[in-house]
Amino acid sequence: MSQSPRNIITVPPEPTLRRLPWYLAYVTQLREGGIEYVSSTQIAKALNVDASQIVKDLSFLNLKGKTRIGYQVKALELELQDFLGFKRCHNAVIVGVGSLGSALIADSGLTNYGLNVVAGFDIDPTVTGTVRGGIPIHDIEEMERVCHDTGAEIGIITVPASKAQSTANLLVESGIKALWNFTPFRILTPPDVVIQNISIYAHLAVMYNRLASMKGGERR
Amino acid sequence: MSQSPRNIITVPPEPTLRRLPWYLAYVTQLREGGIEYVSSTQIAKALNVDASQIVKDLSFLNLKGKTRIGYQVKALELELQDFLGFKRCHNAVIVGVGSLGSALIADSGLTNYGLNVVAGFDIDPTVTGTVRGGIPIHDIEEMERVCHDTGAEIGIITVPASKAQSTANLLVESGIKALWNFTPFRILTPPDVVIQNISIYAHLAVMYNRLASMKGGERR
Repeated sequence: MSQSPRNIITVPPEPTLRRLPWYLAYVTQLREGGIEYVSSTQIAKALNVDASQIVKDLSFLNLKGKTRIGYQVKALELELQDFLGFKRCHNAVIVGVGSLGSALIADSGLTNYGLNVVAGFDIDPTVTGTVRGGIPIHDIEEMERVCHDTGAEIGIITVPASKAQSTANLLVESGIKALWNFTPFRILTPPDVVIQNISIYAHLAVMYNRLASMKGGERR
Repeated sequence: MSQSPRNIITVPPEPTLRRLPWYLAYVTQLREGGIEYVSSTQIAKALNVDASQIVKDLSFLNLKGKTRIGYQVKALELELQDFLGFKRCHNAVIVGVGSLGSALIADSGLTNYGLNVVAGFDIDPTVTGTVRGGIPIHDIEEMERVCHDTGAEIGIITVPASKAQSTANLLVESGIKALWNFTPFRILTPPDVVIQNISIYAHLAVMYNRLASMKGGERR
Protein backbone atom coordinates (compact mmCIF):
# COMPACT_ATOMS: atom_id res chain seq x y z
CA MET A 1 0.00 0.00 0.00
CA SER A 2 2.68 2.50 0.99
CA GLN A 3 4.32 1.85 -2.36
CA SER A 4 1.28 3.13 -4.25
CA PRO A 5 1.35 6.50 -6.05
CA ARG A 6 -0.86 7.82 -3.25
CA ASN A 7 2.24 8.81 -1.37
CA ILE A 8 2.55 11.71 -3.76
CA ILE A 9 0.19 14.36 -2.44
CA THR A 10 -2.13 15.69 -5.09
CA VAL A 11 -4.58 17.90 -3.27
CA PRO A 12 -7.72 18.21 -5.38
CA PRO A 13 -9.29 21.66 -5.71
CA GLU A 14 -12.25 22.38 -3.44
CA PRO A 15 -14.91 22.25 -6.22
CA THR A 16 -13.74 18.70 -7.00
CA LEU A 17 -13.99 17.74 -3.33
CA ARG A 18 -17.52 19.16 -3.31
CA ARG A 19 -18.62 17.11 -6.32
CA LEU A 20 -17.04 13.78 -5.34
CA PRO A 21 -19.69 13.06 -2.64
CA TRP A 22 -22.39 13.36 -5.35
CA TYR A 23 -20.65 10.73 -7.44
CA LEU A 24 -20.33 8.53 -4.37
CA ALA A 25 -24.04 8.77 -3.53
CA TYR A 26 -24.89 7.95 -7.14
CA VAL A 27 -22.60 4.91 -7.49
CA THR A 28 -23.78 3.59 -4.12
CA GLN A 29 -27.29 3.65 -5.54
CA LEU A 30 -26.12 1.87 -8.70
CA ARG A 31 -24.32 -0.79 -6.64
CA GLU A 32 -27.45 -1.32 -4.52
CA GLY A 33 -29.36 -1.75 -7.80
CA GLY A 34 -26.95 -4.45 -8.97
CA ILE A 35 -25.30 -2.33 -11.69
CA GLU A 36 -21.68 -3.39 -12.39
CA TYR A 37 -20.26 -0.70 -14.68
CA VAL A 38 -20.91 3.00 -15.15
CA SER A 39 -19.50 5.45 -17.70
CA SER A 40 -18.69 9.10 -17.10
CA THR A 41 -21.39 9.96 -19.66
CA GLN A 42 -23.97 8.11 -17.56
CA ILE A 43 -22.89 9.88 -14.38
CA ALA A 44 -22.92 13.17 -16.27
CA LYS A 45 -26.48 12.64 -17.42
CA ALA A 46 -27.75 11.50 -14.03
CA LEU A 47 -26.18 14.36 -12.08
CA ASN A 48 -26.26 17.13 -14.68
CA VAL A 49 -22.49 17.65 -14.53
CA ASP A 50 -20.25 17.92 -17.61
CA ALA A 51 -18.77 14.50 -18.51
CA SER A 52 -15.28 15.91 -19.07
CA GLN A 53 -15.46 17.48 -15.62
CA ILE A 54 -16.32 14.09 -14.14
CA VAL A 55 -13.35 12.44 -15.86
CA LYS A 56 -11.12 15.22 -14.52
CA ASP A 57 -12.52 14.90 -10.99
CA LEU A 58 -12.17 11.11 -10.99
CA SER A 59 -8.59 11.33 -12.28
CA PHE A 60 -7.58 12.22 -8.71
CA LEU A 61 -8.56 8.71 -7.68
CA ASN A 62 -6.31 5.69 -7.90
CA LEU A 63 -8.59 4.08 -10.48
CA LYS A 64 -8.91 3.94 -14.23
CA GLY A 65 -12.06 3.61 -16.27
CA LYS A 66 -12.05 1.24 -19.25
CA THR A 67 -12.88 2.45 -22.75
CA ARG A 68 -16.48 1.63 -23.72
CA ILE A 69 -17.18 -0.10 -20.36
CA GLY A 70 -16.47 2.71 -17.94
CA TYR A 71 -15.74 2.37 -14.24
CA GLN A 72 -16.42 -0.72 -12.17
CA VAL A 73 -19.17 0.45 -9.79
CA LYS A 74 -18.00 -1.41 -6.67
CA ALA A 75 -14.36 -0.35 -7.12
CA LEU A 76 -15.38 3.26 -7.78
CA GLU A 77 -17.54 3.33 -4.65
CA LEU A 78 -14.73 1.97 -2.44
CA GLU A 79 -12.17 4.27 -4.00
CA LEU A 80 -14.40 7.34 -3.50
CA GLN A 81 -15.13 6.42 0.13
CA ASP A 82 -11.43 5.94 0.75
CA PHE A 83 -10.38 9.09 -1.06
CA LEU A 84 -12.96 11.25 0.73
CA GLY A 85 -11.90 9.86 4.11
CA PHE A 86 -15.40 8.63 4.93
CA LYS A 87 -14.12 5.21 6.00
CA ARG A 88 -11.54 6.50 8.45
CA CYS A 89 -12.37 7.75 11.92
CA HIS A 90 -11.89 11.49 12.56
CA ASN A 91 -12.26 12.60 16.16
CA ALA A 92 -14.26 15.75 16.75
CA VAL A 93 -15.44 17.83 19.68
CA ILE A 94 -18.59 19.91 19.69
CA VAL A 95 -18.92 23.23 21.49
CA GLY A 96 -22.40 24.36 22.51
CA VAL A 97 -24.76 21.56 23.43
CA GLY A 98 -28.02 23.41 22.76
CA SER A 99 -30.70 22.11 20.42
CA LEU A 100 -28.50 22.04 17.30
CA GLY A 101 -25.47 20.66 19.12
CA SER A 102 -27.51 17.92 20.77
CA ALA A 103 -29.09 17.11 17.42
CA LEU A 104 -25.70 16.70 15.78
CA ILE A 105 -24.47 14.48 18.60
CA ALA A 106 -27.61 12.37 18.24
CA ASP A 107 -27.27 12.12 14.45
CA SER A 108 -25.64 8.75 14.15
CA GLY A 109 -25.61 9.21 10.37
CA LEU A 110 -22.43 11.27 10.51
CA THR A 111 -20.42 8.38 11.94
CA ASN A 112 -21.03 6.63 8.59
CA TYR A 113 -19.05 9.47 7.04
CA GLY A 114 -16.06 9.15 9.35
CA LEU A 115 -17.04 11.76 11.93
CA ASN A 116 -16.59 10.55 15.51
CA VAL A 117 -17.75 13.05 18.14
CA VAL A 118 -15.72 12.24 21.27
CA ALA A 119 -16.66 15.10 23.59
CA GLY A 120 -18.95 18.07 24.01
CA PHE A 121 -18.39 21.40 25.76
CA ASP A 122 -20.78 23.89 27.27
CA ILE A 123 -20.82 26.64 29.91
CA ASP A 124 -24.17 25.67 31.41
CA PRO A 125 -23.50 23.90 34.74
CA THR A 126 -26.73 21.88 34.38
CA VAL A 127 -25.28 20.34 31.19
CA THR A 128 -21.58 19.98 31.98
CA GLY A 129 -20.70 16.73 33.69
CA THR A 130 -23.58 14.91 32.00
CA VAL A 131 -23.46 12.41 29.13
CA ARG A 132 -25.51 13.04 25.96
CA GLY A 133 -25.95 10.41 23.30
CA GLY A 134 -23.03 8.56 24.87
CA ILE A 135 -20.78 11.66 24.68
CA PRO A 136 -19.39 13.27 27.86
CA ILE A 137 -20.10 17.02 28.15
CA HIS A 138 -17.31 19.03 29.78
CA ASP A 139 -16.96 22.56 31.01
CA ILE A 140 -15.39 24.76 28.33
CA GLU A 141 -12.49 25.39 30.75
CA GLU A 142 -11.34 21.82 30.17
CA MET A 143 -11.08 22.19 26.42
CA GLU A 144 -7.31 22.10 26.05
CA ARG A 145 -6.90 19.01 28.22
CA VAL A 146 -9.79 17.10 26.64
CA CYS A 147 -8.73 17.94 23.08
CA HIS A 148 -5.23 16.78 23.88
CA ASP A 149 -6.35 13.58 25.60
CA THR A 150 -8.82 12.57 22.88
CA GLY A 151 -6.61 13.54 19.95
CA ALA A 152 -9.53 15.49 18.48
CA GLU A 153 -8.78 17.25 15.19
CA ILE A 154 -12.12 18.82 14.32
CA GLY A 155 -14.10 21.38 16.33
CA ILE A 156 -17.82 21.76 15.64
CA ILE A 157 -19.14 25.18 16.65
CA THR A 158 -22.82 25.29 17.62
CA VAL A 159 -22.73 28.15 20.12
CA PRO A 160 -24.76 31.37 19.75
CA ALA A 161 -23.39 33.56 16.93
CA SER A 162 -22.08 36.11 19.42
CA LYS A 163 -19.76 33.47 20.89
CA ALA A 164 -18.59 32.00 17.59
CA GLN A 165 -15.29 33.87 17.23
CA SER A 166 -14.20 33.41 20.86
CA THR A 167 -15.07 29.71 20.67
CA ALA A 168 -13.04 29.36 17.49
CA ASN A 169 -10.07 31.07 19.15
CA LEU A 170 -10.33 28.72 22.12
CA LEU A 171 -10.47 25.65 19.87
CA VAL A 172 -7.44 26.79 17.90
CA GLU A 173 -5.53 27.45 21.14
CA SER A 174 -6.45 23.91 22.19
CA GLY A 175 -4.74 22.51 19.10
CA ILE A 176 -7.79 21.94 16.87
CA LYS A 177 -6.87 22.21 13.18
CA ALA A 178 -10.27 22.17 11.47
CA LEU A 179 -13.37 24.14 12.40
CA TRP A 180 -16.91 23.40 11.28
CA ASN A 181 -18.95 26.52 11.88
CA PHE A 182 -22.71 26.05 12.27
CA THR A 183 -23.35 29.65 13.32
CA PRO A 184 -24.23 32.43 10.87
CA PHE A 185 -21.17 34.38 12.12
CA ARG A 186 -18.21 34.68 9.77
CA ILE A 187 -15.27 33.43 11.83
CA LEU A 188 -11.71 34.56 11.09
CA THR A 189 -8.97 31.95 11.56
CA PRO A 190 -5.20 31.64 11.17
CA PRO A 191 -4.21 30.49 7.65
CA ASP A 192 -3.16 27.03 8.86
CA VAL A 193 -6.61 26.26 10.25
CA VAL A 194 -9.23 24.76 7.93
CA ILE A 195 -12.68 26.30 8.23
CA GLN A 196 -15.97 25.19 6.73
CA ASN A 197 -19.03 27.37 7.23
CA ILE A 198 -22.40 25.69 7.13
CA SER A 199 -24.73 27.56 4.83
CA ILE A 200 -28.06 26.96 6.59
CA TYR A 201 -28.85 30.67 6.82
CA ALA A 202 -27.71 31.41 3.27
CA HIS A 203 -29.86 28.52 2.03
CA LEU A 204 -32.91 29.91 3.81
CA ALA A 205 -32.23 33.39 2.42
CA VAL A 206 -31.90 32.05 -1.13
CA MET A 207 -35.08 29.93 -0.87
CA TYR A 208 -37.18 32.72 0.66
CA ASN A 209 -35.96 35.23 -1.89
CA ARG A 210 -36.54 32.98 -4.89
CA LEU A 211 -39.98 31.93 -3.61
CA ALA A 212 -41.00 35.56 -3.20
CA SER A 213 -39.73 36.58 -6.63
CA MET A 214 -41.58 33.61 -8.17
CA LYS A 215 -44.82 34.92 -6.77
CA GLY A 216 -44.12 38.14 -8.63
CA GLY A 217 -44.82 41.45 -6.96
CA GLU A 218 -42.76 42.17 -3.93
CA ARG A 219 -39.63 40.18 -3.37
CA ARG A 220 -40.27 40.10 0.31
CA MET B 1 -45.16 50.67 2.65
CA SER B 2 -46.53 49.39 -0.64
CA GLN B 3 -45.47 52.67 -2.23
CA SER B 4 -41.82 51.99 -1.40
CA PRO B 5 -39.33 51.13 -4.13
CA ARG B 6 -39.46 47.55 -2.84
CA ASN B 7 -42.29 46.88 -5.23
CA ILE B 8 -39.71 46.84 -7.97
CA ILE B 9 -38.17 43.39 -7.88
CA THR B 10 -34.41 43.46 -7.85
CA VAL B 11 -33.34 39.91 -7.24
CA PRO B 12 -29.84 39.94 -5.77
CA PRO B 13 -27.33 37.40 -7.11
CA GLU B 14 -26.82 34.28 -5.02
CA PRO B 15 -23.33 35.23 -3.73
CA THR B 16 -24.86 38.42 -2.29
CA LEU B 17 -27.63 36.41 -0.62
CA ARG B 18 -24.95 34.15 0.85
CA ARG B 19 -22.98 37.06 2.33
CA LEU B 20 -25.90 39.04 3.74
CA PRO B 21 -26.44 36.62 6.68
CA TRP B 22 -22.81 37.22 7.73
CA TYR B 23 -23.44 40.97 7.84
CA LEU B 24 -26.61 40.36 9.83
CA ALA B 25 -24.84 38.20 12.44
CA TYR B 26 -22.14 40.86 12.76
CA VAL B 27 -24.45 43.86 13.17
CA THR B 28 -26.59 41.91 15.67
CA GLN B 29 -23.45 41.48 17.72
CA LEU B 30 -22.64 45.19 17.41
CA ARG B 31 -26.18 46.13 18.47
CA GLU B 32 -25.95 43.80 21.48
CA GLY B 33 -22.67 45.55 22.33
CA GLY B 34 -24.36 48.95 22.28
CA ILE B 35 -22.67 50.16 19.05
CA GLU B 36 -24.79 52.69 17.12
CA TYR B 37 -23.04 53.13 13.77
CA VAL B 38 -20.90 50.94 11.58
CA SER B 39 -19.03 51.70 8.35
CA SER B 40 -18.56 49.34 5.42
CA THR B 41 -14.81 49.52 6.12
CA GLN B 42 -15.40 48.24 9.64
CA ILE B 43 -17.59 45.38 8.42
CA ALA B 44 -14.98 44.60 5.75
CA LYS B 45 -12.23 44.35 8.33
CA ALA B 46 -14.25 42.25 10.75
CA LEU B 47 -15.46 39.75 8.14
CA ASN B 48 -12.53 39.79 5.71
CA VAL B 49 -14.74 40.82 2.77
CA ASP B 50 -13.85 43.61 0.36
CA ALA B 51 -15.44 46.93 1.46
CA SER B 52 -16.62 47.79 -2.06
CA GLN B 53 -18.33 44.39 -2.22
CA ILE B 54 -20.12 45.14 1.03
CA VAL B 55 -21.36 48.50 -0.29
CA LYS B 56 -22.57 46.73 -3.44
CA ASP B 57 -24.31 43.97 -1.44
CA LEU B 58 -25.99 46.43 0.90
CA SER B 59 -27.17 48.56 -2.02
CA PHE B 60 -29.94 45.97 -2.51
CA LEU B 61 -31.41 47.07 0.81
CA ASN B 62 -33.77 49.96 1.26
CA LEU B 63 -31.23 51.84 3.37
CA LYS B 64 -28.49 54.36 2.82
CA GLY B 65 -25.27 54.72 4.77
CA LYS B 66 -24.12 58.22 5.71
CA THR B 67 -20.72 59.54 4.65
CA ARG B 68 -18.19 59.32 7.48
CA ILE B 69 -20.76 57.85 9.92
CA GLY B 70 -21.79 54.72 8.05
CA TYR B 71 -24.93 52.69 8.63
CA GLN B 72 -27.13 52.93 11.69
CA VAL B 73 -26.66 49.50 13.33
CA LYS B 74 -30.27 48.98 14.50
CA ALA B 75 -31.75 50.03 11.16
CA LEU B 76 -29.29 47.87 9.24
CA GLU B 77 -30.12 44.84 11.40
CA LEU B 78 -33.87 45.26 10.88
CA GLU B 79 -33.46 45.89 7.19
CA LEU B 80 -31.27 42.79 6.73
CA GLN B 81 -33.69 40.59 8.70
CA ASP B 82 -36.57 41.89 6.61
CA PHE B 83 -34.74 41.59 3.30
CA LEU B 84 -33.57 38.03 4.03
CA GLY B 85 -37.09 37.00 5.01
CA PHE B 86 -36.01 35.85 8.47
CA LYS B 87 -38.86 37.73 10.18
CA ARG B 88 -41.62 36.25 8.06
CA CYS B 89 -43.06 32.79 8.56
CA HIS B 90 -42.35 30.22 5.81
CA ASN B 91 -44.19 26.94 6.12
CA ALA B 92 -42.15 23.82 5.48
CA VAL B 93 -42.67 20.06 5.55
CA ILE B 94 -39.96 17.56 6.32
CA VAL B 95 -39.73 14.14 4.67
CA GLY B 96 -37.89 11.41 6.55
CA VAL B 97 -38.15 11.60 10.31
CA GLY B 98 -34.99 9.63 11.15
CA SER B 99 -32.24 11.00 13.35
CA LEU B 100 -31.45 14.03 11.18
CA GLY B 101 -35.09 14.82 10.44
CA SER B 102 -36.05 14.60 14.11
CA ALA B 103 -33.07 16.76 14.98
CA LEU B 104 -34.15 19.47 12.55
CA ILE B 105 -37.71 19.40 13.86
CA ALA B 106 -36.35 19.72 17.39
CA ASP B 107 -34.02 22.58 16.46
CA SER B 108 -36.11 25.52 17.59
CA GLY B 109 -33.33 27.82 16.37
CA LEU B 110 -34.58 27.69 12.79
CA THR B 111 -37.90 29.29 13.72
CA ASN B 112 -35.89 32.41 14.57
CA TYR B 113 -34.92 32.49 10.91
CA GLY B 114 -38.47 32.26 9.56
CA LEU B 115 -38.67 28.50 9.05
CA ASN B 116 -41.88 26.98 10.38
CA VAL B 117 -42.04 23.18 10.08
CA VAL B 118 -45.76 22.34 9.94
CA ALA B 119 -45.70 18.61 9.16
CA GLY B 120 -43.44 15.60 8.80
CA PHE B 121 -43.71 12.56 6.55
CA ASP B 122 -42.35 9.06 6.84
CA ILE B 123 -43.09 5.55 5.60
CA ASP B 124 -42.45 3.82 8.93
CA PRO B 125 -45.85 2.90 10.43
CA THR B 126 -44.41 3.17 13.96
CA VAL B 127 -43.69 6.84 13.27
CA THR B 128 -46.64 7.95 11.14
CA GLY B 129 -49.62 9.13 13.16
CA THR B 130 -47.37 10.32 16.00
CA VAL B 131 -46.43 13.86 16.97
CA ARG B 132 -42.73 14.82 17.22
CA GLY B 133 -41.65 18.11 18.74
CA GLY B 134 -45.21 19.32 18.34
CA ILE B 135 -45.26 18.39 14.61
CA PRO B 136 -47.70 15.76 13.27
CA ILE B 137 -46.03 12.97 11.26
CA HIS B 138 -48.07 11.71 8.32
CA ASP B 139 -47.78 8.81 5.95
CA ILE B 140 -46.03 9.88 2.75
CA GLU B 141 -49.24 8.98 0.86
CA GLU B 142 -50.91 12.02 2.36
CA MET B 143 -48.33 14.46 1.09
CA GLU B 144 -50.39 16.23 -1.55
CA ARG B 145 -53.34 16.81 0.78
CA VAL B 146 -51.21 17.95 3.72
CA CYS B 147 -49.07 20.27 1.59
CA HIS B 148 -52.19 21.81 0.15
CA ASP B 149 -53.95 22.17 3.52
CA THR B 150 -50.95 23.68 5.29
CA GLY B 151 -49.87 25.94 2.43
CA ALA B 152 -46.33 24.62 2.79
CA GLU B 153 -43.83 26.08 0.32
CA ILE B 154 -40.59 24.41 1.36
CA GLY B 155 -39.79 20.68 1.43
CA ILE B 156 -36.90 19.48 3.59
CA ILE B 157 -35.48 16.16 2.40
CA THR B 158 -33.87 14.01 5.09
CA VAL B 159 -34.55 10.56 3.64
CA PRO B 160 -31.82 8.03 2.76
CA ALA B 161 -29.85 9.13 -0.32
CA SER B 162 -31.39 6.35 -2.42
CA LYS B 163 -34.85 7.89 -1.88
CA ALA B 164 -33.83 11.51 -2.44
CA GLN B 165 -34.88 11.87 -6.09
CA SER B 166 -38.23 10.09 -5.71
CA THR B 167 -38.99 12.17 -2.61
CA ALA B 168 -38.16 15.36 -4.51
CA ASN B 169 -40.47 14.30 -7.36
CA LEU B 170 -43.28 13.63 -4.89
CA LEU B 171 -42.80 17.02 -3.20
CA VAL B 172 -42.84 18.84 -6.54
CA GLU B 173 -46.01 16.95 -7.56
CA SER B 174 -47.53 18.06 -4.27
CA GLY B 175 -46.97 21.70 -5.20
CA ILE B 176 -43.79 22.41 -3.21
CA LYS B 177 -41.70 25.11 -4.87
CA ALA B 178 -38.45 24.99 -2.87
CA LEU B 179 -36.45 21.93 -1.86
CA TRP B 180 -33.81 21.80 0.84
CA ASN B 181 -31.78 18.65 0.26
CA PHE B 182 -29.93 17.23 3.28
CA THR B 183 -28.88 14.04 1.51
CA PRO B 184 -25.57 13.64 -0.36
CA PHE B 185 -27.53 12.77 -3.52
CA ARG B 186 -27.61 15.32 -6.32
CA ILE B 187 -31.31 15.84 -7.02
CA LEU B 188 -32.52 17.03 -10.43
CA THR B 189 -35.52 19.37 -10.45
CA PRO B 190 -37.65 21.28 -12.94
CA PRO B 191 -36.27 24.78 -13.64
CA ASP B 192 -39.09 26.52 -11.74
CA VAL B 193 -38.23 24.71 -8.49
CA VAL B 194 -35.62 26.21 -6.17
CA ILE B 195 -33.14 23.73 -4.77
CA GLN B 196 -30.53 24.16 -2.07
CA ASN B 197 -28.18 21.28 -1.31
CA ILE B 198 -26.68 21.09 2.15
CA SER B 199 -22.95 20.61 1.95
CA ILE B 200 -22.38 18.49 5.06
CA TYR B 201 -20.62 15.74 3.12
CA ALA B 202 -18.58 18.13 1.02
CA HIS B 203 -17.53 19.94 4.21
CA LEU B 204 -16.37 16.69 5.77
CA ALA B 205 -14.46 15.75 2.62
CA VAL B 206 -12.73 19.14 2.50
CA MET B 207 -11.79 19.04 6.20
CA TYR B 208 -10.51 15.45 6.10
CA ASN B 209 -8.50 16.11 2.96
CA ARG B 210 -6.94 19.33 4.22
CA LEU B 211 -6.14 17.77 7.61
CA ALA B 212 -4.41 14.84 5.92
CA SER B 213 -2.40 17.04 3.57
CA MET B 214 -1.35 19.24 6.52
CA LYS B 215 0.17 16.25 8.21
CA GLY B 216 2.32 15.80 5.15
CA GLY B 217 2.90 12.34 3.70
CA GLU B 218 -0.18 10.61 2.46
CA ARG B 219 -3.23 12.67 1.74
CA ARG B 220 -5.44 10.00 3.16
